[in-house]
Amino acid sequence: MQHISAPILLLNPAICKANIQRMAARVKLWKGDFRPHFKTHQSAEVSEWLREAGVERITVSSLKMAEYFAQHGWSDITVALSVTKLQAQVIDQLASNINLNIVVEDMESIHALEGCLNNPVGVFIKADTGYHRTGVDADDLVLMKKLLTPLQEAKKLIFMGFLTHAGNTYYARNQQQLDDIVKPALEKTLALKTFLKDHFPLMQLSWGDTPSCSMYNDFYGLDEYRPGNFVFYDYTQTQIGSCTLKDVAVCMAAPVIATHPERNEIVLHAGAVHLSKDNIKLSDGTISFGKVVKLSGLTWNIEEEIGEIKSLSQEHGIVSVNNNILQHIKPGDVVGIIPVHSCLTANLMKQFLSTDGNLIEMMK
Amino acid sequence: MQHISAPILLLNPAICKANIQRMAARVKLWKGDFRPHFKTHQSAEVSEWLREAGVERITVSSLKMAEYFAQHGWSDITVALSVTKLQAQVIDQLASNINLNIVVEDMESIHALEGCLNNPVGVFIKADTGYHRTGVDADDLVLMKKLLTPLQEAKKLIFMGFLTHAGNTYYARNQQQLDDIVKPALEKTLALKTFLKDHFPLMQLSWGDTPSCSMYNDFYGLDEYRPGNFVFYDYTQTQIGSCTLKDVAVCMAAPVIATHPERNEIVLHAGAVHLSKDNIKLSDGTISFGKVVKLSGLTWNIEEEIGEIKSLSQEHGIVSVNNNILQHIKPGDVVGIIPVHSCLTANLMKQFLSTDGNLIEMMK
Repeated sequence: MQHISAPILLLNPAICKANIQRMAARVKLWKGDFRPHFKTHQSAEVSEWLREAGVERITVSSLKMAEYFAQHGWSDITVALSVTKLQAQVIDQLASNINLNIVVEDMESIHALEGCLNNPVGVFIKADTGYHRTGVDADDLVLMKKLLTPLQEAKKLIFMGFLTHAGNTYYARNQQQLDDIVKPALEKTLALKTFLKDHFPLMQLSWGDTPSCSMYNDFYGLDEYRPGNFVFYDYTQTQIGSCTLKDVAVCMAAPVIATHPERNEIVLHAGAVHLSKDNIKLSDGTISFGKVVKLSGLTWNIEEEIGEIKSLSQEHGIVSVNNNILQHIKPGDVVGIIPVHSCLTANLMKQFLSTDGNLIEMMK
Repeated sequence: MQHISAPILLLNPAICKANIQRMAARVKLWKGDFRPHFKTHQSAEVSEWLREAGVERITVSSLKMAEYFAQHGWSDITVALSVTKLQAQVIDQLASNINLNIVVEDMESIHALEGCLNNPVGVFIKADTGYHRTGVDADDLVLMKKLLTPLQEAKKLIFMGFLTHAGNTYYARNQQQLDDIVKPALEKTLALKTFLKDHFPLMQLSWGDTPSCSMYNDFYGLDEYRPGNFVFYDYTQTQIGSCTLKDVAVCMAAPVIATHPERNEIVLHAGAVHLSKDNIKLSDGTISFGKVVKLSGLTWNIEEEIGEIKSLSQEHGIVSVNNNILQHIKPGDVVGIIPVHSCLTANLMKQFLSTDGNLIEMMK
């Protein structure tokens, strides 16, 4: 039996593998390629579970992450973060070893990269279909055509198609709201192919985000899907409706430091350096930094709710505890926390403890 | 010249050393010991700058951090996080090598630790003087005396005194508000000595937090001071009034990924995995995840403001850019970000690049 004396992130492989199987089956229905995003787990060991489910091509969020997974046997990688000339050297090095796709969204970067790369690289243009974070407005066909002109002549930059991330699906809180965000974004994406396919008949449309891939049921015409968070899911995804609490594959084991019955609070050794400061507004209007549940050994029980983390400092989490439970909790106990945002939590913890007792390493 | 192709946290040693000198001089005025908190820098190399300023005793926020600094020549360490029996083995191991102080706040943990430790350990009782996070209510002398009873007989747990952290000073936004928080907390702390010194004439009072140690001018009667953030300061501390922008010793160098003149925004490669999701409300009511300034080489210029980060996702930061500046910024530029919370930012980045071009390692 593992002795827990400090926060550690538990990972249930059975739940994780079921999430992978379910998503792989959904993508197959839509006749697209499954190119999952690996930024959530950042782990060579977890990546093998995706390989077992038939995954051959992957997405990452940084060139450093591409280098890590290239070293672990992945040879077809899309870096879904827009690049500029600053990254030319790293891109060229990676492209000498693997099939690398990058994302660009401005003319100067296209010219600069074409001018200095030695190895061919696949290029997606980032299309903004409503999230308004990065990307060229998908409706701006004039600008799109302008960016495509140098790509028609390019020797090192091989135009692959358009990549979009409808990150505004994270604002949805039910199926209807999600559908209302996805439908117009999907139409904008498909229109790019309709209008531009004459010049680029092989162009691909690449689509991302876990909420839409988990909940939307009418995808068609897209070439690949890049969800990432679904491998673990998290408390936020349960609020959107992408999953239920039983689908969340990770849980922070956290020691109880103090109990304060006079204010219905317990204090955990689990702070911003473990969970991240990401938080969600619950349906009752309160803010939560994580749902606290009972833990027995390395197994958490979502049916036995203890409370919600109402504030976080660097190493501490303060939990508003449900009535009548506080008398059963004492300093030195260990509880579980369903994280608000599993990507950021995993990124902070840098390793997992599987529920069968094995340490699973991540990219350092 | 260092080529920056991904976010990296710059550290200006001259500013950092000046912050250390200034704080050491303040603590000397109050005739207390200076036991700075090392959770902000988490770096053996930066710790040497504190040693050069005469520091011999330190504070850390976890037992893991205590192990790291013990390995780097620090032999008197207080772990300012309440512990329970769960940590007994790690505590005992550390206490066999260094002078270790721990913090406790409940009877069961006192009995359990006394029962199983082989090596003597200094013990502070955590006193809550108004922050209401952890600690025994400093006004509750009945409970304090109850906790002290077993410590009078204890052989392994050596009672050192009371430790308090007036973390509510972070709510202050000017000198008056800070004084109004510190005065009653200081009085409560001093009262503990007044009422209990007959039984424990050697008891010490240990005081923490950067805002009060930077701004309060009338400390007396305390035995030691444990500020930590002051080595770097950050954007939050400038809002409280602990420092000015020119005192902030760290700045994130971040590539510009995209520019969006139509909505006065630029997008940076600098997200929650680099900066943390901590944010502050500025005086105009808007939220900022970091102040963006011009960067020339490795030198940032606080006089040349570019804008404020208005939202963060995992790898991206979106900046609201001041008028007329956007035309001078293009993808592939590198800008600087004064972080909202330098402790969390450093914890994520795991290393610094000094402004004279050297990599400075941190605890991994």
